[in-house]
Amino acid sequence: MSQRYRFSYADIHHTLGLAAQEVIESGIEFDYILAIGGGGYIPARILRTYLNRPILAVALARYQDNGPALEIPLKLQWTEGFAQAIQGKRLLVVDEVDDQRTTLAWTLAELHKEHPQSMSVLVLHDKDKPKNAQYPKYVDRVFVGQRIDDVWVEYPWDALDIYEHEHTATGLVHVDDPYGSH
Amino acid sequence: MSQRYRFSYADIHHTLGLAAQEVIESGIEFDYILAIGGGGYIPARILRTYLNRPILAVALARYQDNGPALEIPLKLQWTEGFAQAIQGKRLLVVDEVDDQRTTLAWTLAELHKEHPQSMSVLVLHDKDKPKNAQYPKYVDRVFVGQRIDDVWVEYPWDALDIYEHEHTATGLVHVDDPYGSH
Repeated sequence: MSQRYRFSYADIHHTLGLAAQEVIESGIEFDYILAIGGGGYIPARILRTYLNRPILAVALARYQDNGPALEIPLKLQWTEGFAQAIQGKRLLVVDEVDDQRTTLAWTLAELHKEHPQSMSVLVLHDKDKPKNAQYPKYVDRVFVGQRIDDVWVEYPWDALDIYEHEHTATGLVHVDDPYGSH
Repeated sequence: MSQRYRFSYADIHHTLGLAAQEVIESGIEFDYILAIGGGGYIPARILRTYLNRPILAVALARYQDNGPALEIPLKLQWTEGFAQAIQGKRLLVVDEVDDQRTTLAWTLAELHKEHPQSMSVLVLHDKDKPKNAQYPKYVDRVFVGQRIDDVWVEYPWDALDIYEHEHTATGLVHVDDPYGSH
């Protein structure tokens, strides 16, 4: 038996609504929500409901053609479509989870080269574990939806059987896992 | 009293899973899922679970600065970041709803200029109503998650109180609506 998180859509949406409230209370007026895809698309779209800012997206791939994880992620889609628009603007960069922070820190450094006025980060989940990188100094604020233990997370959008997922999504769940804890 | 649709996340996810099955059965091997943001981000990410193709995104704005609806949508983000990548490739273009089809047809025409090998469309919902445009001939296939009546749709991602939304999301609902039917 091992532990996992299994979050329902409603719980995730609710968590993001609370995080959005913190963003509003911070007083920072963001110009754009910047989603880091694939994980950031759904959190970004939910946040837009509360923050009412336009969404821009970049997309990274950490794997290619079934190979091993890439050291430096592949820029599937980058800022070419909106580089001018974000110069001098305040960005709220959104991702699904802060795991080891390697990719997130690298992405922030790459975005910094585009000369936004400021960047803050909002992650749906922050895993309580050692991080490979600190947030760079030019990151104004870090908003966290929920701090969670370092166990595998089953997100609803990855479910093949969504009704089964939603009926059993109670946060921390115990599962039979032949591979042990992830 | 008027009628609306109020869909839960699970129902939408399930609908997209069935649509993905149709995509697979079509035998068309898509290279990319192309989300039309904002509405396409969440459907595209859910579809990726079933279709396992990378997501690219464009984003359109139909309103600017609280003004009236724009005749031609604003390209908040376009294909500059991946124009080369999609040349000669097969795209599955994803959006939330086929309403009057004006914006969707315009977007397809604009994407066609980038010379993909082929384009198909997948919409989560298709409203049963007169359309302002036909799908262009260069669109291979149109996949529809669900055909629905021409009434207002409350999507879960737009909910301010997601628990209330999910508890009352039974598809077609009757609501007191001081503005009448939308």
